[in-house]
Amino acid sequence: MSLDRDDVRNVVAEVRLGNPRALGRLISWIENASPALPTIMQELAPDTGRAHVIGLTGAPGVGKSTTATSLVRTLRARGERVGVLAVDPSSPFSGGALLGDRIRMQEHALDRDVYIRSMATRGHLGGLAVATPQALRAFDAARFDTVIVETVGVGQSEIEVAQTADTTLVLLAPGMGDGIQAAKAGILEIGDIFVVNKSDRDGAQALVRELRTMIALAQRGPRDWKPPIVLTVAHEHRGIADLLEAVDRFRTSQMETGRADARRVARARREVESIALAKLRAEFRLNGEAGLDGLAELVSRGELDPYAAADRVVVGR
Amino acid sequence: MSLDRDDVRNVVAEVRLGNPRALGRLISWIENASPALPTIMQELAPDTGRAHVIGLTGAPGVGKSTTATSLVRTLRARGERVGVLAVDPSSPFSGGALLGDRIRMQEHALDRDVYIRSMATRGHLGGLAVATPQALRAFDAARFDTVIVETVGVGQSEIEVAQTADTTLVLLAPGMGDGIQAAKAGILEIGDIFVVNKSDRDGAQALVRELRTMIALAQRGPRDWKPPIVLTVAHEHRGIADLLEAVDRFRTSQMETGRADARRVARARREVESIALAKLRAEFRLNGEAGLDGLAELVSRGELDPYAAADRVVVGR
Repeated sequence: MSLDRDDVRNVVAEVRLGNPRALGRLISWIENASPALPTIMQELAPDTGRAHVIGLTGAPGVGKSTTATSLVRTLRARGERVGVLAVDPSSPFSGGALLGDRIRMQEHALDRDVYIRSMATRGHLGGLAVATPQALRAFDAARFDTVIVETVGVGQSEIEVAQTADTTLVLLAPGMGDGIQAAKAGILEIGDIFVVNKSDRDGAQALVRELRTMIALAQRGPRDWKPPIVLTVAHEHRGIADLLEAVDRFRTSQMETGRADARRVARARREVESIALAKLRAEFRLNGEAGLDGLAELVSRGELDPYAAADRVVVGR
Repeated sequence: MSLDRDDVRNVVAEVRLGNPRALGRLISWIENASPALPTIMQELAPDTGRAHVIGLTGAPGVGKSTTATSLVRTLRARGERVGVLAVDPSSPFSGGALLGDRIRMQEHALDRDVYIRSMATRGHLGGLAVATPQALRAFDAARFDTVIVETVGVGQSEIEVAQTADTTLVLLAPGMGDGIQAAKAGILEIGDIFVVNKSDRDGAQALVRELRTMIALAQRGPRDWKPPIVLTVAHEHRGIADLLEAVDRFRTSQMETGRADARRVARARREVESIALAKLRAEFRLNGEAGLDGLAELVSRGELDPYAAADRVVVGR
């Protein structure tokens, strides 16, 4: 299906009115890397820059979806419109694998002011680093006050996704592997707030102590925000009010220091850079396709080193 | 410290003789993205293309280091020289956080035919996708027969690292989150062999069944290799012989079908492409630094869309 500017305008107009089906179509276009993305983003731009984005990351099994559901409940009680974007970098079942999360969220299934969506990004040029901010722009245009981005795991891609958030929550749980393993994944650097979920289990206090030490060790130089550790039992909705209070305190602090804007500019910069690099990459693939496999074969046999090969590719582009 | 070609040649000559201190220096140069890398890779190239690379990936806590230690023991008993590279994408403690792994491996600490090394890659241009094959080339030149690459977690970067292996082992363990969560991380697509470690625990058979179903679902079209599932209890050294037998069968199959070479060419191609993109990126950063922040600010305020911004950057480079 080829989209023209009028198709895009019609859907964006419906999105602005809060039509969930239109928002669903828009995010599908983003997910499937529609060739109309430049037009779509141009049409969306004037309606963006408002929603508060909360990133939610942590290893499988720590309770991210349950925590997201619980956050949605409290934010709804405040009267906010809330979106949830579950980001899945490489699922072979694009969407299907996240059915479980959707089911867990069915508490909010009939609420027009809640929109829950999973997104896979196989084949999206620029990957998650580009698709996530695009989807957030769609939620933003649909006038959601808060959008929770839930990422799967804590690899490099998830860290990139977390960096697109205004406020990043890092979830841990007792008995899921020790704090040293948490540190390995680089999450200490990205967490604005740490959440020890399942805090009614054995080992919660030990995890908090270890985490506190590691946060202190990981801090480099003076910081105007010391990441707090909040204890929750999300499936019983315990600690969620404390968590949102910490989020509010963080936002206030970020606004006061001007860091909130700086972070949004950095986010936009990464997005622009990713798109620019994807363009360069596409150009390079188009021009270098035939020669590249030949060069790679020489490199794989040790007859050429990869830097010399890359030089040939870049100069020959 | 500036390295000239003679320094590099001397170290590479020592590496060829199997000097572990020289190998350590070489990998540190790679880890720290030495400006001499092009020279280093040029000197190493003629000695590469021989070692068998086994990738070992899985969520924290499944027993990757214990399995690696156990594999080393069996490979040593066969008379092989064995290297272990523990890859850590973003640790704030570069190296320090992996001390635990090193300690667990101290069984092999005094064996000259075993070399264990962790590597962080903060600031490495091109990141893990470039640094890992470079480090593998160093192990290869040092005449290791098998190199085990252990990656932390199962994010996108870990998937990239696993793709640099000749044979990829995906580890799971009962009670670490269900198979659906395993599928989320995209590991079904990259595993040549699946290992259910800690298989003496409750839930191991259920995990095997679930995994078998999901592997069948994830397969697209005919494949000449159906990934087997091997049960191990690595800390008791059980199942490791079966695992290595599966690895041998996989290698034989790959050699017979010509896929082993195709995979090495694909690996070299990704490496060359990553270096080429890193070069383009560096060029772009140098030229566009001042203008990019200004563009990003317009994008963050919704006054410009990111595609239009990227167009300006690419055209203006």
